[in-house]
Amino acid sequence: MTYGCLASMKTRPGFREEVASILLSAAEGLREAGCDSYVVGLADEDDTTIWVTEVWKTKEHHDASLELPGAKEAIGRAMPLLTGEFTNQELSVAGGLGL
Amino acid sequence: MTYGCLASMKTRPGFREEVASILLSAAEGLREAGCDSYVVGLADEDDTTIWVTEVWKTKEHHDASLELPGAKEAIGRAMPLLTGEFTNQELSVAGGLGL
Repeated sequence: MTYGCLASMKTRPGFREEVASILLSAAEGLREAGCDSYVVGLADEDDTTIWVTEVWKTKEHHDASLELPGAKEAIGRAMPLLTGEFTNQELSVAGGLGL
Repeated sequence: MTYGCLASMKTRPGFREEVASILLSAAEGLREAGCDSYVVGLADEDDTTIWVTEVWKTKEHHDASLELPGAKEAIGRAMPLLTGEFTNQELSVAGGLGL
């Protein structure tokens, strides 16, 4: 099975759209790094929560991607806009549509 | 923005693989129903939790899909294998890879 993760983060008020744009700018180039799916979603229940769901060929591909210059640059831009409240759920991906 | 949801369910002990297979069998035909992504994942932290992440063209497409014969049949087969503990998070999907 492939590796997946469901992550949430909270932005400072008024910065959710900007953080989502930063995350999406980093999505370019993820496929060649071993990513099969990367979805950025805005929680309907509040104005500050972002959910990111990812599917990778292996956990090692995911971990290595965090060291890519584009990822590091995006993380650096996003971090000051976040509150520091994160969750992360790791998954073994059984399959699906769009992978 | 398109519609997304992150749902979790808990299976009775020993039935997680079977429920995942049922969910994946229902994935066939979802694309023509308006689904852009459907990922079935098994939580790493226990042996009974399944996460399903979905992206649909609209919420109406999602809701209508639950009435499809294949979906109803799959739900009917899966329900006796579940504990009844569900979570659901609705999202506005900002974008991503694999959509």
